[in-house]
Parts: sequence; C-alpha cells; structure tokens
Amino acid sequence: MTLHLIGLGLCDQNDLTLRGLEALKKCTTIYFENYTSVLQCKKEEIENLTKKKIIEADREQVENKSEEILAKAQKENVALLVIGDPMSATTHINFLIEAKKRNITCEVIHNASILTAIGITGLQLYKFGKTTSMPFADSSTPAEVIKENQKNNAHTLVLLDLIPQKNQCLTIAEAIMRLLDKKVITETSLIVATARIGCKDQIIKAGMVKDVRQTNFGKPPYCLVIPAPKLHFIEEEALNLRR
Amino acid sequence: MTLHLIGLGLCDQNDLTLRGLEALKKCTTIYFENYTSVLQCKKEEIENLTKKKIIEADREQVENKSEEILAKAQKENVALLVIGDPMSATTHINFLIEAKKRNITCEVIHNASILTAIGITGLQLYKFGKTTSMPFADSSTPAEVIKENQKNNAHTLVLLDLIPQKNQCLTIAEAIMRLLDKKVITETSLIVATARIGCKDQIIKAGMVKDVRQTNFGKPPYCLVIPAPKLHFIEEEALNLRR
Repeated sequence: MTLHLIGLGLCDQNDLTLRGLEALKKCTTIYFENYTSVLQCKKEEIENLTKKKIIEADREQVENKSEEILAKAQKENVALLVIGDPMSATTHINFLIEAKKRNITCEVIHNASILTAIGITGLQLYKFGKTTSMPFADSSTPAEVIKENQKNNAHTLVLLDLIPQKNQCLTIAEAIMRLLDKKVITETSLIVATARIGCKDQIIKAGMVKDVRQTNFGKPPYCLVIPAPKLHFIEEEALNLRR
Repeated sequence: MTLHLIGLGLCDQNDLTLRGLEALKKCTTIYFENYTSVLQCKKEEIENLTKKKIIEADREQVENKSEEILAKAQKENVALLVIGDPMSATTHINFLIEAKKRNITCEVIHNASILTAIGITGLQLYKFGKTTSMPFADSSTPAEVIKENQKNNAHTLVLLDLIPQKNQCLTIAEAIMRLLDKKVITETSLIVATARIGCKDQIIKAGMVKDVRQTNFGKPPYCLVIPAPKLHFIEEEALNLRR
C-alpha cells in the first residue's frame, strides 16, 4: 500500500493537480494537515470534490503521532494533504524516511508553493537567499537571515506565522514593527508585503515601509520580502506596478 | 480578455491543476513554451486532455515576439503554458509588465517548480541560498554562487541547461567535471544529482562525487545540489536513503 503526500497548492480545492485528484480517489483514509498555513476554502469543499471523508490532522498528529498514519499506510492507501508543496517542510521528509524504514511506498505529488509563487512580485527567484519565518515569540533569526542576505545582495522571503485553529496570525504591521525594532529596516526602506498569493484576491504591495504598513491586507496567509540592495531594472519596473 | 500564464508542473499533462485546466477551456489560443525545460509527455497529450490545438512557442517567439501573444490577448482569451511555475523565469514577469501597460488582465496559475520540489532530496528548503544554472558555454557564475552559498552554510541548486529542440542537454557528468575544474568540489565531496524530479521514474543519487558521476541518469531534466558544509541530522538521514 502507498502513503501519498499530496500538495494542495495555495488557494483552494481547484489548485489540486489531476494527478493529486486521481491519487485521492484511490485512498481510503485521507488526512488534511491544517496547521502550517490556511487555504481559502473549507475542508468540506475538498470532500465534495473528492467524494471522500477528510480527517483534519493537527500538528501533534502529524509530528508526534505519525506512527498512526504510517501504520494505516501499511494496510491501505493513505493520503496526507499538505498546503503548498509537501516537500517544503521538514516534517514530511520524516515521513519519507520512516516510510522507507517500514517498506511502505511513499509517493509525493508536488504543487505550487509560496517559495516559488513569490516570484509574482517580480523579484527574480534565483536572487533569493535563505528563507526565514517569523514566529509569534520574539526571535532574532529573521533579522539575522535578512542581514546575511543583504550582504550577498539577495532577497529575503519572510513567512509570517499563523495558528489557523485559533484564528491567530502575525500581522504585516506587527512583523514590520519587529524588523524596525531590530534595525534591519527603516521607515524609508523598500519592502514588499503580500497576502493570499495564488488567490484571485491576492494583495501585493511594494513601497516604503511607512506606506506599506498602513495597507489593509485582509485575511492571511501573509509574507514579506526584503529586497536585495541592488535591483535589476525589470525587478524595479515590476515592483512599480505594485506601488 | 485575459492572458493566462499557466504552470504545467514537472512531469506530464496530469500535473495540470484543475484551475489550469478550467482556464485552458476558456482560451481560444494556447501557446506552449517548449524551450526552458522538458516534460515527459508530448504536446499531443495536452491537446487530447484539453481538446484544444496547442501552438509550440520557442524562445524567440516568447522573448522577442511577445508582441504577437499580447496583441492576441487584447482580443481573445490566450494561454501561455509554462513548464514548472510560470513565475520562476524573468521572461514571464515581462508579460505581467507589458500586459499591465496595455490594460490586458493577466492571470497567473501557479504550479510545482523544481525550486521547491528539490526538497524531496531531504535537504531543507529554507537552507538553500541563491540558485544558479549551468549553461552550455563555460561560465564562472555557478562556481561563484556555490562558493558564496558554502560560506553561508547554504545549499546550492544548480540547474543544467538543455535545448529540447536539438535534443541537447548538459549531462551530470559534464557538469560535475566543470565544477571539479573550477575547484569548488573534489572527488570526495558530497553531492546530490537528480533527473526527472516529480516523475515516477525520478532518480536522486547522493554520495561522493566520484561515485555519483558514474550513475546512469537517463533522460533530462537534470540538476545538482551542492549541500551546505554542515547538515542537520534529518538531512543526513534523508540523503542516506539516496546513496
């Protein structure tokens, strides 16, 4: 039997690939990992599409009780639905490793991820340095990663943390305030802030920190990009569309 | 009318998303960009799926004759199919910019990209530094990017160039030889080489340069990863599955 790690892409059930949908039809148990990001659709809409019951799996289930998911996959076709691409988080690499140890076939079905879709800002993807996330608890990591990338003339993608179950998210205004506090940006630095990339109502706002922070971005997920100090003229032209 | 930039994902027609397929059904002219990478299916298989005629567009058409594509999109719904995610190449950013200037709506439909799917090697995506490609002509850029990333303990993804129309590709053995020549790796360095990531018959081989270079990787697309000097133990465990 097979454990399918299936990417859901960025917005809703229509971002599933044909391959992903086909695999889901063969599965008898389907878990939906609901804590790393948020889709703009309800679980029920994926259930309607697949005609299958979907079990929501929280962090504990996926990270600590992975045994349960693996044990099931030894006996039946199991799917774990993951927002974005299943290979963008370490947790899922663990599934590959543990499945291999137990001789369970593990199939990965890739999909769009914010790590690539962020290219829609016009900032060139090959010029991005290390990615960082900003957690709720104060952390020095984002500032350190940004500084290192700036030194290498690389862009930095900063993913803002969220807890979908509690309807909590780190807002763009809050994230910007923390970066100002850490002195990696100033009120007049160029910054790009985005909400719901990949959705019809996505917002991409480029400009000076003091202007961008006043935008109403609506619902998460959010991310920031701190552009490299030197931009290509096409990058500049693309950002000008977002001012 | 709308210009749709639609990602095809990594392997074949089944990697299209439901949203992508829906958009294609509304389009009267569909271009397929056939020079940045290769799919493991023929144009005809996408035609069979969409029931639409597809026009192959080479580099000249997409980069220099974009005027023709834009002019069409002023009058009808047009799609440009792109392997991977449409936002991973600068060319497509140009379309966003030019469409905006002409008041043409431009919709981007994201999909899986090698830039994220490479996470299947087990190397953590947030630890990747700048990406580089290795062209047919000798270039110092890949070596420079690798050196900079190594200094920051970052992984480097190296995309190997190909010319699908001429059935030419830079092989993994050749790419490794060039990196040995430039002294950024040695025969005993750890390296990861991959072919056809995202396909059922993908090959991921990790190990010392002298061993990896002797593997038969089959058909392209190929890429290399030069891992960061310090690995996390989960990264090591994941790479051990690929030795």
